[in-house]
This record gives sequence, C-alpha cells and structure tokens, in this order.
Amino acid sequence: MTAPHARLSLNQATIKYATLPEALRVSADAGITSIGLWRDSVQAVSLPAAAQPLTDSGLRLSTPRRRGLVPAPGGGARRAARADTRRAIEETARLAAAGADGSAAVLVMVAGGLPEGSRDIRGARALVEDALAELAPEAEAAGVQLALEPLHPMYAADRAVISTLQQALDLAAPFPAATVGVGVDTFHVWWDPQLTEQIARAGAEHRIASYQVCDWATPLTEDGLLSRHYPGDGVIDFAAITSAVQAAGYTGDIEVEIFNQAIWDTAPDQAVARTIEGFENTVGVQLRRTGQDTRPE
Amino acid sequence: MTAPHARLSLNQATIKYATLPEALRVSADAGITSIGLWRDSVQAVSLPAAAQPLTDSGLRLSTPRRRGLVPAPGGGARRAARADTRRAIEETARLAAAGADGSAAVLVMVAGGLPEGSRDIRGARALVEDALAELAPEAEAAGVQLALEPLHPMYAADRAVISTLQQALDLAAPFPAATVGVGVDTFHVWWDPQLTEQIARAGAEHRIASYQVCDWATPLTEDGLLSRHYPGDGVIDFAAITSAVQAAGYTGDIEVEIFNQAIWDTAPDQAVARTIEGFENTVGVQLRRTGQDTRPE
Repeated sequence: MTAPHARLSLNQATIKYATLPEALRVSADAGITSIGLWRDSVQAVSLPAAAQPLTDSGLRLSTPRRRGLVPAPGGGARRAARADTRRAIEETARLAAAGADGSAAVLVMVAGGLPEGSRDIRGARALVEDALAELAPEAEAAGVQLALEPLHPMYAADRAVISTLQQALDLAAPFPAATVGVGVDTFHVWWDPQLTEQIARAGAEHRIASYQVCDWATPLTEDGLLSRHYPGDGVIDFAAITSAVQAAGYTGDIEVEIFNQAIWDTAPDQAVARTIEGFENTVGVQLRRTGQDTRPE
Repeated sequence: MTAPHARLSLNQATIKYATLPEALRVSADAGITSIGLWRDSVQAVSLPAAAQPLTDSGLRLSTPRRRGLVPAPGGGARRAARADTRRAIEETARLAAAGADGSAAVLVMVAGGLPEGSRDIRGARALVEDALAELAPEAEAAGVQLALEPLHPMYAADRAVISTLQQALDLAAPFPAATVGVGVDTFHVWWDPQLTEQIARAGAEHRIASYQVCDWATPLTEDGLLSRHYPGDGVIDFAAITSAVQAAGYTGDIEVEIFNQAIWDTAPDQAVARTIEGFENTVGVQLRRTGQDTRPE
C-alpha cells in the first residue's frame, strides 16, 4: 500500500457515511495526518463532542466548509443565514484550536444560488458582497480566514453565484488576505481559460487559503454534484494546476473531497486507500518533482 | 395566438423530429420569417434538395451550425475534420444565397472537446487556434462569417473547449470581424460574471454574428445537453442580456434553439406556438421597449 503524502488531507465528504470517530480512525490508521471536516457531522454531535476526538486523533484540521454567503434578499431569512455563519466562524476557531499543530482556521464559504423565484444573478452577487462586508470583520475578530470558493458554473442557479476564481478574488479584494482568501477546487475551476493567470494573481495577493482536488469525468451523472472522481480517473491535468498553485506559494494541506455515490458505497478504508493512491499518482508526483513534498512548519 | 416577432428565428433543433419541408412549412404557417437549419438535415437530402424548399418557403436563413473546430491533434482525423468544415463553409454560402433577403452567411462553430485520452485542455485550445488560422481565409474567400460559440463550461471535456465569450473574442481577435465573429447563446453564457463587459467588447469589435436564446432551469436532466427550456421557463434574465446585445449593435435574427426531449415530443406546431409566446414575453418585450422590434433592412 502507498504511504500517504504528508500534505494529503482527507475531506470527510469523501467517506460520507462514516461517523466522525470512524472518519478520524480510518484516516489515522492509513497514516493520513490531516482531515477536512463537514459542519453537519460536527453539529450532529455538538462542538465539544467533535473537538475532543479530533484532539485525540492527533490529526490536523484542514478546512471545514460551510454554505454561508446565502444571497438572501432580507428580513428573517437573511438574519438567520448571518447568525448561522457567525456560529460557523466560532466553530472553526474552536475546532482549529482542537486540531494538531498546523491546523487551519479557515472557513470555506460557498455562495448559495439565486433566491427563490429570482432571475437576477447580478443582484444575487451584490447580496453576497453585502454579506461578506458584514461577516469579514467578525471572522477577523475570531482569527478565522474566510475562503471564498467558486463553484462550477453549472451550479450558478441553485448552489453558488460565485462561478470563477477571478470573481472570488474581485470579491475578496477589499479585505486583508488574512481575513478573506479564496479556495481552489480543481473540479470547479479546471475548465477556466483564465485559470493559470488567476491562480498567479491569487498567489501575488497571498489569498490561496484552500486547495482541493478531485477529478472530472464524462458523462456526468444525473446529479452533477456527485460526478466527482479520484484524482487520475478523469480529464483534469493535476500536474499543471498543482504546479500553478505551488508557484503561487500555497504550502498548506491539499484536500481530496469527492462526492460520488459509488465511492460512498465503498468501505471507508478502501476509499481511503484509493484516495491515497490517486493523490500520489497525480498531485504527489508533482509535489515531489519540485521538492515541496513536506509541510514547511 | 401571439403573432411572431419580426426578428424571431426558429432553430430547426427545437423541432428536431420534423423533416426539413415540415420545419419550413410549420414555421411559415405560424408567420415566422426566419429559420436556423442544422447541417444534418441538409445533408440528409443533399444541398440542392435543401436549398430549393428554403427558397420556396420565402424564409430567411439565420445560422446553420456546425461542430467544426475539432481539436484533432493531427494526421487523418485532422485532415478529415478540416475537409468537413470546408464543405460546411461552402454549404453555408449556397444556403444563404437560397434564403430570402436578409439571410446570414454565418457558420456557427463549436470547438469540440478534448482529444480522446487527453488531459491537456490548454493544448486542445491551441489546436483550435491552429484550425481557425487555417480555415478563416477560406471562409473569407467564400464570403462566409465564422461565429465562434462558447459552450457552457460543463461541456469543456467532451463538447467544446471554448467556454467563455472572452475566450472566443480572444481567439477571434487576429481576424477581421467580417470573417470571424462570435455567437452568443444565453444558455451557455448567462452565468458569466464578465458577460455584460464581454458583450460590450464584442459590440465594440463588431463581432456578434449570432444571438440565440433558450432558458436554464434546475434540476438539470441527466443529459445536460437536453436541459434547455422555452424562454421564460427558467432563471435567465433575458431583458438584461438582450439589452446588452442590443447596446452592442446586433440587429440580426434571434434564434430560439432548444434541446429538450419533452419539447421534441410535442407536435411541431404546438412547439412553435410556445416558442413564439415565450420569445414574445421575454425577448420581444425588451425589443419593443427600445423600438428595435423590426429588422433594419
């Protein structure tokens, strides 16, 4: 069995049906040193009940994730969304403190889709801008970095009105990089003709807060969200994208986050073994090529 | 029944199962004055056999379409693809001459996806550039304008490595606008944060050669290609996009092109009636608002 790369983080979503303790155990057993947690699983057991096993596992926390910048036009829905994101900021700070050294106090933010019944995507994007202006100072106060993650344009209507890295960087621009960064997920951005240029820009602005990898293969499944694959099983050029992210100065954990029913139906330890192997053959070889195969701490 | 707008063109793909004579008849019967033909249907009956009924129908030809810039790496596949596109250029010139006054000698070009087994999207895009350099002079000699149409990024792997209007305009830039323009299809570009800016740029460069409209609605169907809807049945802001296209100076026909199994299963005359109605309520009202509701010839 391949030994896991030192910078590989398993995102919990890849083994969705494992409980939090199982996910921590199977990762640690495989020699993985970092994990990305989903907020649902943390909330299912309460924050202290999640923090303690994380500490006990000895794993670093890479990035928890949250669909937080919902472009709600106003009123109660908007207040509820903001309050929820505030709780996520607080949880991120506490979980990062509970993880091993090198844990990231980064909250990945996904924008949310069009408000119900709306056809105004420009308006929805302006609402995201408003939400960010309100939440960024609170993240800063909590010592948490928000990472705006563009989702693939096929989700623009129903999941995320932030669709490109350029757009995420434009939204982040008014804020300090330590407060608002961006997330790069190969599945969402691999197609972008501006990708190399915008990753370089993100590097120059010190804003890459998260790098996630999984592969794109066609045909897509009916639920496009589940059409993600182990790195190497699709058409994404991981050497090129990883090289750009390296050149941009990102030295943190690299998460494998896969939504795929067939992978979810695999035994967690097998899915973890395949993740380690796929990562090694795509991202790992590229990192070793340039000597960036250990974490710099 | 609503009278069809003077600038509405029915793309034949919307009533896919109708034969060419049926498509011409049902359009003319409904009072539509322009039609977009698919190359398959023309080839099924030979060029003269398609040209004569078009002339007899009295309809204008809007744009025939062709998946022509296949990024084939070389050898026989490449020569075959080029030869095929040459035939399409010639057919376009002859069909436009066979249509009524105001027919467009415009060939919509879709780029094609990654070559079999390739993960090199940048390389594929460079191959498209090469193909264009070779074909543009031939289009110019034939008096045909090529329209590069970006497809939605969800098709980048398997259908079209041209994914944004900006990218299409960058590819078109070395050529005269009368030879290489761009196609704007709402379904493919509605999500783009740069859309308004790039439509304005296309206008300033006089490159808008085709404007097609259909709607985006979620959830997508399993075959994402068939998830297109009558204008008004989804989330696209047709007033905003049409207004930008108007401001960019486009005064030609506006095609409704819908791939949707349920619509294909409708009787052609009913699909045409719904097309007229959907167009009127979205694009038509916007055109009338600004007095651009007739063709300028």
